[in-house]
Amino acid sequence: MANIQKMNRKAEANNLIFRPHFKTHQNIHIAKWFREFDITTCTVSSVNMAKHLAAESWNDIFIGFPLDINELEEIDRLASKIDLTVLVNDKAHLEALEKLENKVGFMIEIDAGYHRSGIDFRNHELVIELINQSVGIPQANFKGLASHFGNSYLARDAAQIMGIGLKSINRLVEMASKIERLLGQYVFISIGDTPTASVMSHFPKIDELRPGNFIFYDLMQLQIGSCRIEDISAYMQCSVVSKNYAEKQVIIHGGAVHFSKEYIDFLGVRSYGHIIKIDGQNWELTSNFITSLSQEHGIVQCTDEDFDIIQIGDYLSIIPVHSCLTANLMKENIVFE
Amino acid sequence: MANIQKMNRKAEANNLIFRPHFKTHQNIHIAKWFREFDITTCTVSSVNMAKHLAAESWNDIFIGFPLDINELEEIDRLASKIDLTVLVNDKAHLEALEKLENKVGFMIEIDAGYHRSGIDFRNHELVIELINQSVGIPQANFKGLASHFGNSYLARDAAQIMGIGLKSINRLVEMASKIERLLGQYVFISIGDTPTASVMSHFPKIDELRPGNFIFYDLMQLQIGSCRIEDISAYMQCSVVSKNYAEKQVIIHGGAVHFSKEYIDFLGVRSYGHIIKIDGQNWELTSNFITSLSQEHGIVQCTDEDFDIIQIGDYLSIIPVHSCLTANLMKENIVFE
Repeated sequence: MANIQKMNRKAEANNLIFRPHFKTHQNIHIAKWFREFDITTCTVSSVNMAKHLAAESWNDIFIGFPLDINELEEIDRLASKIDLTVLVNDKAHLEALEKLENKVGFMIEIDAGYHRSGIDFRNHELVIELINQSVGIPQANFKGLASHFGNSYLARDAAQIMGIGLKSINRLVEMASKIERLLGQYVFISIGDTPTASVMSHFPKIDELRPGNFIFYDLMQLQIGSCRIEDISAYMQCSVVSKNYAEKQVIIHGGAVHFSKEYIDFLGVRSYGHIIKIDGQNWELTSNFITSLSQEHGIVQCTDEDFDIIQIGDYLSIIPVHSCLTANLMKENIVFE
Repeated sequence: MANIQKMNRKAEANNLIFRPHFKTHQNIHIAKWFREFDITTCTVSSVNMAKHLAAESWNDIFIGFPLDINELEEIDRLASKIDLTVLVNDKAHLEALEKLENKVGFMIEIDAGYHRSGIDFRNHELVIELINQSVGIPQANFKGLASHFGNSYLARDAAQIMGIGLKSINRLVEMASKIERLLGQYVFISIGDTPTASVMSHFPKIDELRPGNFIFYDLMQLQIGSCRIEDISAYMQCSVVSKNYAEKQVIIHGGAVHFSKEYIDFLGVRSYGHIIKIDGQNWELTSNFITSLSQEHGIVQCTDEDFDIIQIGDYLSIIPVHSCLTANLMKENIVFE
């Protein structure tokens, strides 16, 4: 709740629409927490998620993933019920939207330096072509530019995150200005990624914020400097099922089917998850970490001291490397008041 | 079906009990295919899987994962209904079994060189201690030694797999002989892992075979030489949602939540999945492969030629790196006759 409140206040202070990405929790109950802050707009990464949220009275949803034209029928059905916005970056996307019976909004995806998908930030000509193409498609309403600064995950401290954020925002603003000059219409800009949204305080000329991971944060966010350990709000609890006395390792029931296979180099070790000690509200990192994962097994390398204390049947509390993937695998959360 | 038949014949020819691991498919319908070969014994890696299979009349199940003593109540309930075998490697496991009301079999887990979990293959004294400890526990019936040669996954050709298999089998047989001499009772040996089960033809002094992955195989098994491409029986089908014209990459709706984050170095590239061309029964590897994965996105690096042919909305057929993790994430299969 504190994470939502903090991000919501930042959006309000900057006069931004807050459209949190729900791909991290994928949970209709957690989605309700956002309602307590009067947040009624959200982002998802699949038509399927949008369907589940629409069934829970979320009526303004942006599918922040390039339009899958094989899902057009489902999108059309959904668009008949709610205010749906899709993401396009190619003429083929707009051509597909001509087949819709119901109206959708569309954002044009801009690649501001991440190089995953979207139109290159220098290519305002193509963006203008798409906007002009859409004029002939009454079902498709141009809403603005959308970008995800995924390269902020490669930063290694808050200053680097800030640098990536500012550079990317400048690129978007420059593109928007060119389009505004040439077409004479205001161009709305939407950005999203937890690192820059967490670290930056001001978002000049930006209209909308779409972070997702901040609801839980995780070891990766901690490492790159986008959160403090006290901001992390989700951990895994895994049974110790076996002890390797020679290697000072314990084996937990927590494998790739629970954590996914994401790792980071953290505090000098390659970690697939770090064990914490919980004392009331206080979570403290230990020097014990998951050193490898197979399908159901996790191997936790322990300090000599902790190895002797940890017994078969104990539960270990573990901060996952990437909470989005872990939450997707676990499907359920237990919520503590 | 051919993969099941082949492995079943190998087990029969060697007079082995065939106890396939169902953690790969986790699918009650695929489990039924094994029934067509009169296979009624199986292995699982969680109590949860055992429960689902017990509900489908699988009455002889081995949970091939170190006993989680926090799941003792569920194990007890299950043991009241079916012939259940658990895996132990520590005195603490056997102490826990004393609390059961119903009888279970137990295998003792031996580490034959993989170093994930189990008792070191040199430590027959501890194994004998555990067997002796179990004499005083009427609920716990010693069934034999079980080992998983997971290090066979690190092999890079069939000869290396064979070498790991033979060495590991020799270590188990030597331990069993010592125990037999000292306790005067026959010691049953169960092994499982797809690479050695696929490559070896003879399993001297082994009693039971528990491979799992062979039902589907995957890119990793192909690379290490445990299968041919025509043995692979599962692929993913993903929509092309975007094209990156500068980089000759296409973006698919297929990310870490579909494939997990497993990669291998395959044919000179780091691949998270390889695109195949399907022509009837014939599957042919292409030079297009997944070069990176985020939560829902996969980036496919294409040859110049194929990039021009592939269009937004096309479906790509992809062999996953690790079919167990992909099957776990996808939950559903479409079966072609």
